[in-house]
Amino acid sequence: MTKIALIEQRLDQLIAQKGLLIDAIRYALLGPGKRIRPQLVLASAETFGVAPELALDAACAIEMVHTFSLIHDDLPCMDDDDFRRGRKAVHRAFPEPIALLAGDSLLSEAFLVLARSSASNPAKVLLIETLGQRVGKDGMAGGQALDMHPDGSTLDHLLDMQKKKTGDLLSCSLEFGPILAGNDPKWQEEMRRIGLLVGLAYQIRDDLEDATQMSDEKKPTAYTFLGEQTARELLEKCLKEIDSGLAELPSKGTAISELLDPLFLKWRESRTSLTK
Amino acid sequence: MTKIALIEQRLDQLIAQKGLLIDAIRYALLGPGKRIRPQLVLASAETFGVAPELALDAACAIEMVHTFSLIHDDLPCMDDDDFRRGRKAVHRAFPEPIALLAGDSLLSEAFLVLARSSASNPAKVLLIETLGQRVGKDGMAGGQALDMHPDGSTLDHLLDMQKKKTGDLLSCSLEFGPILAGNDPKWQEEMRRIGLLVGLAYQIRDDLEDATQMSDEKKPTAYTFLGEQTARELLEKCLKEIDSGLAELPSKGTAISELLDPLFLKWRESRTSLTK
Repeated sequence: MTKIALIEQRLDQLIAQKGLLIDAIRYALLGPGKRIRPQLVLASAETFGVAPELALDAACAIEMVHTFSLIHDDLPCMDDDDFRRGRKAVHRAFPEPIALLAGDSLLSEAFLVLARSSASNPAKVLLIETLGQRVGKDGMAGGQALDMHPDGSTLDHLLDMQKKKTGDLLSCSLEFGPILAGNDPKWQEEMRRIGLLVGLAYQIRDDLEDATQMSDEKKPTAYTFLGEQTARELLEKCLKEIDSGLAELPSKGTAISELLDPLFLKWRESRTSLTK
Repeated sequence: MTKIALIEQRLDQLIAQKGLLIDAIRYALLGPGKRIRPQLVLASAETFGVAPELALDAACAIEMVHTFSLIHDDLPCMDDDDFRRGRKAVHRAFPEPIALLAGDSLLSEAFLVLARSSASNPAKVLLIETLGQRVGKDGMAGGQALDMHPDGSTLDHLLDMQKKKTGDLLSCSLEFGPILAGNDPKWQEEMRRIGLLVGLAYQIRDDLEDATQMSDEKKPTAYTFLGEQTARELLEKCLKEIDSGLAELPSKGTAISELLDPLFLKWRESRTSLTK
């Protein structure tokens, strides 16, 4: 069974009741999605010797948090998006209060799933503490607040916002591997360092791809600050640092690089052709 | 130092940074409030022999969750209330996205505070699991969804909604005492039973008080289903069951009854005068 199939089967089991709220949660959680973050959890777990079955609930908790953030980001008072992944946004497919509460429920459920998982008690507490830090006021929610109401307009402000909004949950996904393995805290720190680099690379890649398309988006990006050439160089630098970081992990971090490589393939290739 | 002062001092310490999101969180969390739920945590802890200092973070976590629920309930897509406790609602004092994210942050922070508290690892996991159950799709958020979109119109549907929306967090507050004390699970079950009775009594009391005031509220209440006499009798029955439950607790549950008695004083007295 592929990682994605394993994740989707377990998500289906975890939210399996009836009612309007549950329908909205399932619509959001089990709809189409790339499942990047939960796959990163399984890949990080594999890297540190933890079997997928033992990391599955932690992976599902991360996907629940990611889904919660998408539901709330799409709400009329936030980005006011009517569509997500080719389907109606949750607040368009269901009443808006139900969408809000589906998000709230998924956030709460993520912590519940971790508390009920098969990890040891010390590991559970560290998973929950790490998730709480990455998701709350100093993490994803804080980043989203800065995106809506920036407290400055420099590149540093932008990168700090993106680190929190995008980087912290990607970092959390990678941090979960060594925590599940009960490893030395230095490995969690290293996975956080790599995770934040992945977040930055991910964001620059998106900026570069958006820049090649017509867009009404008026918000500045790293691309608008740096220009194409410097943005590409920054992406290249990130990818090299990620590669060298992964190479020092157990099994050379192969499980993780296999997951990340396809995401950046286009930009690695174009980089190569650029520097030829 | 009173229980309330202790709780408010600790809440102030726990959210102590700068920025718009933090300002909104502090506005909501440190504004006027009765602090019933966190005081119930401390009273339940005291009943089971746990000092206030060791239960304080669990109490603050409960107040954070309660505050999160008030912020989201007041939002335009929910109850659309412009005022709360004599002040502007958070989404009127701050931009609406910041209010939404302040709620999200408080929910996440509650779990973080529990994970970082001084409780033992097994106690932390059980606190977190219990909070997750009481707050999510099967608890408070589920109850709020049923309040917005009921799945039936009988008294039983109403009571099920209120049990989740109001009862579950009150129950959670009382359940935290025996969990913090590392007690036999039967005490948690008993505190849940008492907590749900407290929730029911609280709700009927509110219904009775609302019924004596002019109100535009069109939603049915237990009062409208039962009529005044039967609602009063149901409240009386609840209070008697609570009293007899508390009497069986260590120290006869005095710390808890001292907190609850003032809430119901008026209705106990009027009951007495009624049956004279």
